[in-house]
Amino acid sequence: MSQSPTGSFQQTSAYKKLEDLAKTPFDLAQEGNLTADRINAMTAHAGPFKLSFGTERVTEDVMNSLFELASETGAVSKMQRMQMGDILNQIEGYESENRAVLHTAMRDFFGNQQTGPRAAQAMVLAKAECEKLKTFLSKVDGRFTDLVLVGIGGSDLGPRAIYMALQAYKKKGKRVHFISNVDPDDAALVLETLNLDKTMVVVVSKSGNTLETQTNEELVRERYNKAHLKPENHFVAVTGKGSPMDNPSNYLASFYIWDYIGGRYSATSMVGGVMLAFGLGFDNYMEFLRGAHDMDQIALQDDPKKNLPLLAALLGIWNRNFLKLPTLAIIPYSQALVRFTAHLQQCDMESNGKHIDKSGHEVDFHTGPIVWGEPGTNGQHSFYQLIHQGTDTIALEFIGFTETQYGQDLKFKGTTCQEKLIANLLAQSIALAIGQKSDNPNKRFCGNRPNSVLLAKRLDPYVMGNLLAYYEHKVAFQGFMWNINSFDQEGVQLGKLLATKILDVINGQAKQDSFTLGSALLNLMM
Amino acid sequence: MSQSPTGSFQQTSAYKKLEDLAKTPFDLAQEGNLTADRINAMTAHAGPFKLSFGTERVTEDVMNSLFELASETGAVSKMQRMQMGDILNQIEGYESENRAVLHTAMRDFFGNQQTGPRAAQAMVLAKAECEKLKTFLSKVDGRFTDLVLVGIGGSDLGPRAIYMALQAYKKKGKRVHFISNVDPDDAALVLETLNLDKTMVVVVSKSGNTLETQTNEELVRERYNKAHLKPENHFVAVTGKGSPMDNPSNYLASFYIWDYIGGRYSATSMVGGVMLAFGLGFDNYMEFLRGAHDMDQIALQDDPKKNLPLLAALLGIWNRNFLKLPTLAIIPYSQALVRFTAHLQQCDMESNGKHIDKSGHEVDFHTGPIVWGEPGTNGQHSFYQLIHQGTDTIALEFIGFTETQYGQDLKFKGTTCQEKLIANLLAQSIALAIGQKSDNPNKRFCGNRPNSVLLAKRLDPYVMGNLLAYYEHKVAFQGFMWNINSFDQEGVQLGKLLATKILDVINGQAKQDSFTLGSALLNLMM
Repeated sequence: MSQSPTGSFQQTSAYKKLEDLAKTPFDLAQEGNLTADRINAMTAHAGPFKLSFGTERVTEDVMNSLFELASETGAVSKMQRMQMGDILNQIEGYESENRAVLHTAMRDFFGNQQTGPRAAQAMVLAKAECEKLKTFLSKVDGRFTDLVLVGIGGSDLGPRAIYMALQAYKKKGKRVHFISNVDPDDAALVLETLNLDKTMVVVVSKSGNTLETQTNEELVRERYNKAHLKPENHFVAVTGKGSPMDNPSNYLASFYIWDYIGGRYSATSMVGGVMLAFGLGFDNYMEFLRGAHDMDQIALQDDPKKNLPLLAALLGIWNRNFLKLPTLAIIPYSQALVRFTAHLQQCDMESNGKHIDKSGHEVDFHTGPIVWGEPGTNGQHSFYQLIHQGTDTIALEFIGFTETQYGQDLKFKGTTCQEKLIANLLAQSIALAIGQKSDNPNKRFCGNRPNSVLLAKRLDPYVMGNLLAYYEHKVAFQGFMWNINSFDQEGVQLGKLLATKILDVINGQAKQDSFTLGSALLNLMM
Repeated sequence: MSQSPTGSFQQTSAYKKLEDLAKTPFDLAQEGNLTADRINAMTAHAGPFKLSFGTERVTEDVMNSLFELASETGAVSKMQRMQMGDILNQIEGYESENRAVLHTAMRDFFGNQQTGPRAAQAMVLAKAECEKLKTFLSKVDGRFTDLVLVGIGGSDLGPRAIYMALQAYKKKGKRVHFISNVDPDDAALVLETLNLDKTMVVVVSKSGNTLETQTNEELVRERYNKAHLKPENHFVAVTGKGSPMDNPSNYLASFYIWDYIGGRYSATSMVGGVMLAFGLGFDNYMEFLRGAHDMDQIALQDDPKKNLPLLAALLGIWNRNFLKLPTLAIIPYSQALVRFTAHLQQCDMESNGKHIDKSGHEVDFHTGPIVWGEPGTNGQHSFYQLIHQGTDTIALEFIGFTETQYGQDLKFKGTTCQEKLIANLLAQSIALAIGQKSDNPNKRFCGNRPNSVLLAKRLDPYVMGNLLAYYEHKVAFQGFMWNINSFDQEGVQLGKLLATKILDVINGQAKQDSFTLGSALLNLMM
């Protein structure tokens, strides 16, 4: 296959410098190398966050070359073009989605508005949906105690992660539930706890024909029919205008999303909005949007030391392309963020798990890493053994907060729970970097596990908005620098196609021999 | 550092053969190579399971060499020794735990009992705890509607994953909750929903001094005191005999575990038992144990084609050590198994994330992989993009069932939800193997993503027991073949030590300059 032409990621002059520098990466485990001064010098601030990266294997030279890389690849100007509404979701010369990428317009009504005509138009439409939502919720308040969100992928992971993160701020008397998997046991478990009469069902599908979501919607509608309740008085659609779901006779209300909102970037749109405003209150939803918007502004800063998502993207590229680390563990020391890593797994891996550049050439460098993780301190009692002493090196990003959400804490053995939580985070960051020598080989830790620490005061709706957009933009920046399309997902099509062929065999619309491999596997199940 | 001597994993004659064979692994993407015949031939059966591995990059030669590897490394005889109670948890010549490994004794009362004196003794003790539990639960039935399990790591992940998997079988009127993280918001969220008077609190810590668990226990006790309820009438201890928690004046009852039960292997002991028997009923707990026991028997089979966990271990070693794949995605097509991957992450990574062999020599091959995953079909709408089209190859293990748990299903567009679920699993297995050619580079899939499919009829308590033990033994077999100690976790100590140093600075017991790195990071938070 043809290779990328000159001018791409690998042809920058920064790339060659970084390749050289990576031959002797900074040795964090060498005594005296990781110092308090280094930690202080290698800390950047923006918005509510501090990003401490002294525990990465970088030097000032490495940082300067990374900044050059950002500049040579035009990272910030591409971010500006994205927020203005340029067509970035495309592969030149081939059939592709050919769309703008405008999730930032969903929250662009807190000052410093984008002036590009597509962005301005998208903002007006988004604001109108927000106002529609406010009116709708005040009209139905009192009628519904519960909300079930039916969606999958981006219509589930991001919204669910954010709701779980902000349960401490939830509206009194309101409960939210989720059905995503086509596994019927998922729906059964949720439905058994509900009073259907007091429940609103929000169905989310941009196209209006996502098979899992349609199936689950049908399953829940049947429950309403059996209970002699009219689904059209309970069901709300979040979908594209003109989709098969955009039908007032079937829904109490419809809220719109657009083709320039990718599923994994949709949490601030009505996809997350209807549920979050119901469950947390409209004002908390607005605070969340304002937080995201403020990070959108930070992502437009030219100086990478002030542009935190760009800085994080660069550190990630150093670990991925130069230190050759295939995976990234994201570890929030916050139980509230228990599902946030699952959202980031989608956001990063679906965006940047790509093998061609924007001109359709095969890349010959590594793109998006495998992203995984669980909250600390739980992870410490689980997979940290491998991170400290396994045969592979894993890059890590820690996230922490200095204050609790609920304000319910307890001093035990001289420190509070929150202090214990944050002390563990800091201790792990240091331990992974410096390691430990010992005569007992089982007590040896080789260190040099590169990691960074992102800190804020408290995980409230505003900070959650910041955090969401921080990662959205980190991922987009990496895609910009790799010159790949972070906004399509052709890789999910083949599986869908083959699943349809198997289902055609099952329901008798196709003969067994039309897809012998599928039939062979089906036979195993007899 | 000194290297492993001859006789180890790499010095087997099978290793050299496999190294040669790995130069030209079977090409699944070559048209005509993956056939229905291959799928049928490469399927093994044992207990309730079928394991289909035609979609792995193996040939008959590879399989025969893997079987030789198992034989040369004495895998099955080590499993036999483990189940008999030999001291396997040790590093020869160095200070180490020096213990037997007897989680199989926790369920060894369904026939074919082990005769080794340690195993026989452990079984008698375990059975006595089961009987004590049965009596205790019948005595307090009616008094408690809710149970909170307080534990972390192995005292949380396995039990929680199993409870979530079997909620379809839960006892009417009983609810179970979990507190694990030292994050005080974790406890706050759980406690706000409870009637403390009707709640039993089960605290699990083998040593009786796990900091997170002690802290959370204290936090919950304080709630009881504030509510003028006596904690000692509500709290139950699961701990080692003679631990600080083994104190009848503080607990309604104590149930015992022993030093030969590692946390990550403790789900079938009282660690999982008290909660599972309360939440699912004692009979379902027994069915779960019987399932695990039956898999223990299968793991003693000499023939790897009948010994499913050994077969899975061998396929994993092929992918890890010969095809050099650093990560393993475990994807259950079952929402009930939503937390099972988190348990397996601990079970595998804490067991086999090791850098020395059992004689204390550094290994120079890769040990345990990074294990991650989320349930399908959700994952398809998330990270599958990278699995299909990213620049890294990921090994996968699929788990699926042909029938639902709740029996509540719906035909939609000609097929049921369960049929859609399983069709998607099978389609992904094939798509990942064969890939797709296309003139549009964005629609190209290179295939050769090795994967296997584990199938059973329905996820009931018996099958869940089988599944748990299947993975416990898969992990143990890999450790046996690599000649590492899968049963200790020295790698978690360094972080604990440094956390204590930081906490001493916070509570004023040590000066800032006693640990300048920790202090520098703490300063960031001001």
